[in-house]
Amino acid sequence: MKQPQDVEQHVDNAYGGEREPTNAPFVRNIWYVVGWAGEFEGSGPFSRCIIDEPVVLYRKGNGALVALQDRCAHRWAPLSLGRVEGDHLRCMYHGVKYGVDGQCVEMLGQDRIPKTLCVRSYPVVERHRFVWIWLGNPAVADTSLIPDLGILDQDWRRFYSGSLQYEAHYSLINDNLADLSHIAVLHEKSGGRTVGSAAADSQLTPYVSGGAEAKPLDRGIRVEAWVGPAQRSILLPRKIPGGDIWTRTDFLAPGTLVSITQMYPYGTAEKCKGLPPGPEQRMLGDIMSIQAVTPVAPRKTKYFFSLGPRVADAEKEESDGLWQIMLETFAEDLQMIQAQQKVIDDHPGHRMAGIAADRGLILFRNVMKSLLAAESPGARL
Amino acid sequence: MKQPQDVEQHVDNAYGGEREPTNAPFVRNIWYVVGWAGEFEGSGPFSRCIIDEPVVLYRKGNGALVALQDRCAHRWAPLSLGRVEGDHLRCMYHGVKYGVDGQCVEMLGQDRIPKTLCVRSYPVVERHRFVWIWLGNPAVADTSLIPDLGILDQDWRRFYSGSLQYEAHYSLINDNLADLSHIAVLHEKSGGRTVGSAAADSQLTPYVSGGAEAKPLDRGIRVEAWVGPAQRSILLPRKIPGGDIWTRTDFLAPGTLVSITQMYPYGTAEKCKGLPPGPEQRMLGDIMSIQAVTPVAPRKTKYFFSLGPRVADAEKEESDGLWQIMLETFAEDLQMIQAQQKVIDDHPGHRMAGIAADRGLILFRNVMKSLLAAESPGARL
Amino acid sequence: MKQPQDVEQHVDNAYGGEREPTNAPFVRNIWYVVGWAGEFEGSGPFSRCIIDEPVVLYRKGNGALVALQDRCAHRWAPLSLGRVEGDHLRCMYHGVKYGVDGQCVEMLGQDRIPKTLCVRSYPVVERHRFVWIWLGNPAVADTSLIPDLGILDQDWRRFYSGSLQYEAHYSLINDNLADLSHIAVLHEKSGGRTVGSAAADSQLTPYVSGGAEAKPLDRGIRVEAWVGPAQRSILLPRKIPGGDIWTRTDFLAPGTLVSITQMYPYGTAEKCKGLPPGPEQRMLGDIMSIQAVTPVAPRKTKYFFSLGPRVADAEKEESDGLWQIMLETFAEDLQMIQAQQKVIDDHPGHRMAGIAADRGLILFRNVMKSLLAAESPGARL
Repeated sequence: MKQPQDVEQHVDNAYGGEREPTNAPFVRNIWYVVGWAGEFEGSGPFSRCIIDEPVVLYRKGNGALVALQDRCAHRWAPLSLGRVEGDHLRCMYHGVKYGVDGQCVEMLGQDRIPKTLCVRSYPVVERHRFVWIWLGNPAVADTSLIPDLGILDQDWRRFYSGSLQYEAHYSLINDNLADLSHIAVLHEKSGGRTVGSAAADSQLTPYVSGGAEAKPLDRGIRVEAWVGPAQRSILLPRKIPGGDIWTRTDFLAPGTLVSITQMYPYGTAEKCKGLPPGPEQRMLGDIMSIQAVTPVAPRKTKYFFSLGPRVADAEKEESDGLWQIMLETFAEDLQMIQAQQKVIDDHPGHRMAGIAADRGLILFRNVMKSLLAAESPGARL
Repeated sequence: MKQPQDVEQHVDNAYGGEREPTNAPFVRNIWYVVGWAGEFEGSGPFSRCIIDEPVVLYRKGNGALVALQDRCAHRWAPLSLGRVEGDHLRCMYHGVKYGVDGQCVEMLGQDRIPKTLCVRSYPVVERHRFVWIWLGNPAVADTSLIPDLGILDQDWRRFYSGSLQYEAHYSLINDNLADLSHIAVLHEKSGGRTVGSAAADSQLTPYVSGGAEAKPLDRGIRVEAWVGPAQRSILLPRKIPGGDIWTRTDFLAPGTLVSITQMYPYGTAEKCKGLPPGPEQRMLGDIMSIQAVTPVAPRKTKYFFSLGPRVADAEKEESDGLWQIMLETFAEDLQMIQAQQKVIDDHPGHRMAGIAADRGLILFRNVMKSLLAAESPGARL
Repeated sequence: MKQPQDVEQHVDNAYGGEREPTNAPFVRNIWYVVGWAGEFEGSGPFSRCIIDEPVVLYRKGNGALVALQDRCAHRWAPLSLGRVEGDHLRCMYHGVKYGVDGQCVEMLGQDRIPKTLCVRSYPVVERHRFVWIWLGNPAVADTSLIPDLGILDQDWRRFYSGSLQYEAHYSLINDNLADLSHIAVLHEKSGGRTVGSAAADSQLTPYVSGGAEAKPLDRGIRVEAWVGPAQRSILLPRKIPGGDIWTRTDFLAPGTLVSITQMYPYGTAEKCKGLPPGPEQRMLGDIMSIQAVTPVAPRKTKYFFSLGPRVADAEKEESDGLWQIMLETFAEDLQMIQAQQKVIDDHPGHRMAGIAADRGLILFRNVMKSLLAAESPGARL
């Protein structure tokens, strides 16, 4: 396999000298996924924690979501132990009632309400089956910064969604998603291959070179390629005929993965000269997955994931089976990354050694560093 | 509701600027409840921890309680794993035997006993169904400072007693007991009312104004009032006829609650001109509760409580039911206060906002501050 | 009992002023027991932790054990989640494969291997049923420093072996083994005696004076004595006739106990003038136990132990019973020492009071201090 000079340098210099971000502050001026919309049925209140900040969500009379700081200004009881009353949320310790802007609107036994009786209110948006929250300065909470996940709104797909809680820093999960070379090794069983066997290794190329060929995006990284039929993902429904496979995985700040694998008739790759297929190419079928990584605390992370085979491509039973395979791979990631976090915390101060496949995660970290640098402490509210 | 000028100021200044005492040192020169006397049956040894100090208690041959530091001077094995031998307590690791004053009285295989082989001995008193311990300077351990809880000795009552262990600083439980306005909200279900409904709110006045009308005592605070029949506590036995209700709640350092609610014939309140009823007034029945809060460690607290309906006022079955209601309210407090502690610890350095009902807890904190200030470090032993 | 002047001084000065070693660094240039050989069946990998260092062990194709740092140099995934491939160990996160010297020998998707892709390799030896590891400077890993435990290789014994995990610093377990006076008290039930009763106390002498009569060895301490038949250990098989009993217990750095109790015909003690019996004396039977204490982390310790009655001395059923008694005493030690550790950690900075029996543990600590002092930080690798 070719080893371009600039990658070599990465290996010996930039990668090998990289400090781990598992103790860096979190970006605040960004939209985080706080949950699948389906987690917020009824009026609530719902208790969540994002980047170490306890948040209570509830639905107003008209169904719209409200997000407040989950801490009564009076005696710091959690408002998530409170009660939704119309558009308001009442603390059920001493009865302080809050409006959607976080200001106290009523207190038992006291007419005059001190201005200090207020909590933070956060911008919150329901979009693409996800609920998004902005914990930074609300003045710059631009909803156009929410990634376009319209693919989650395609009603001709059969959607599966779930989440896992990690005992690990979210950047380790980002690393995992920014370098898919691990699929060939960690998930070899799910893929039905055995790493280290000659027959298997030739098939692993697109995976193991994935991270090394990452390209920068404005707010993330992209890995895309035409791959031969030998690399057909076992997540592609059987009904989809053989052909040329196009895969694209975007990984966007702060931790959103958009992965699509499409099948085209043999010869399409050549016709496209290795470039991405245009809309004029006839697609034979596809599989997609949207995933999101949300830091809960420095060592706790929520991992949201989905799978969306097209109804036309697979019966429910086959689709259910694909979802099971996906859940197994996520269990493998969970075990490995939590173990990795433990080793990291037991050895503070050491440095990791770099490999070529780290290119993707290095590029992504640079994106996160820029976003963090752009946040002056004053701009953070 | 009236808002006197001085309370307003409290709201905006004193209360709002109040630093939390959850990280302050504990008062040592004071009697703490170490348990209900009934917890110390047999000779022991019994292991307890009070203000972070492990204590072992045992009964001498004559039944009198002894309290020693729970740490053998030799190799620091806990003496609570030891054995009572007559008036002495033997460490069961290497056999060092201690007398009631904490001095070693015998060692296996060694005639000469070094003076350093001794542990602290604490004044301990059994009174009013409680066992009290003094962890500070024994030279100033004045038993007249034990609050008069003679009401616990009245043998015409049917006593119920219990305890709960909190994962919270004891001052948060003190706050809870020094401002009973929370009863209207947190315990609305136990009271059969719904806060926020017009019908209910008129009944809540005496509760919600409770903390705001607290009066200072020498070593605590008092809230007392004549309240209308609408405020009849559901803890008052049914057999007690309607009338004017007199309630008094004293909350005494370091954390003893003495609460009594009495029924008098209609017109007694007016006859007394709002002042406390004298012994010449005929009482129709009552209900009482004595409670005590003992810090175990900065984030662990033992909460002791009792209920004492008079045998004449209620059959055993009804009394049992009242006790069940009380246990339910204590479970509500436990959940709320532990959650509150967690929020406080997750947000160090912030300040709480004050309300008028905080007056009681502010007064009580001032008492505790004075007691702490009066303890020169040298006076602490 | 006699109290020689020098022991008195120990009691009042050296012992009483002794600082606890529970926060001292661990000696690294020494052989630690990492497990019973029987724990490492198959090729592995096996995950262990010794003096806070995670280690992965595996068996090469020829069965020889290899020990590597349990942390992939690339992204710090634990290699113990990896896979043994012939003589090599592959990390199953991204596929980095290591040789027995800890150098990367293969990487997927990358021909050039950076020198930084390596992990530490530790000297490891299988000897006397134990696996020994050297975590310090490998250049001075002299296998002749492994204690001679040839007694564990005697095939005419029926061996029992086990291990316990302690939540305590390993020096507290060393203290326990360096002063066997605790047997008379902590294990009185297992011994069928009651400490404090006149009849029993006369029998306890050899135990309680054990620590006080310890003699220094080059790398440990020794307690040996002829004891009267009243002190016959209940671990001696019944078939062994009465006689003069010779006991010797060596406790060797970093924590290896070699204990043997032998029976000789009446009169042998006198014939030997109190000195150890020579090979010309006819032995009637014996019992032995080898034990080892290995620090896992500052508050975690692995305790390995064995019992080896001779096949000729006891049927299997009786032997099984002796082993059960031993397990009961170890449960008593575990409870006491873990409680002791908790008390120590709750009272940082205090000093323990000394007794005469501490002589053994003081001598042993001096050995450990010398070994630690001999390790210049530079010599540690």
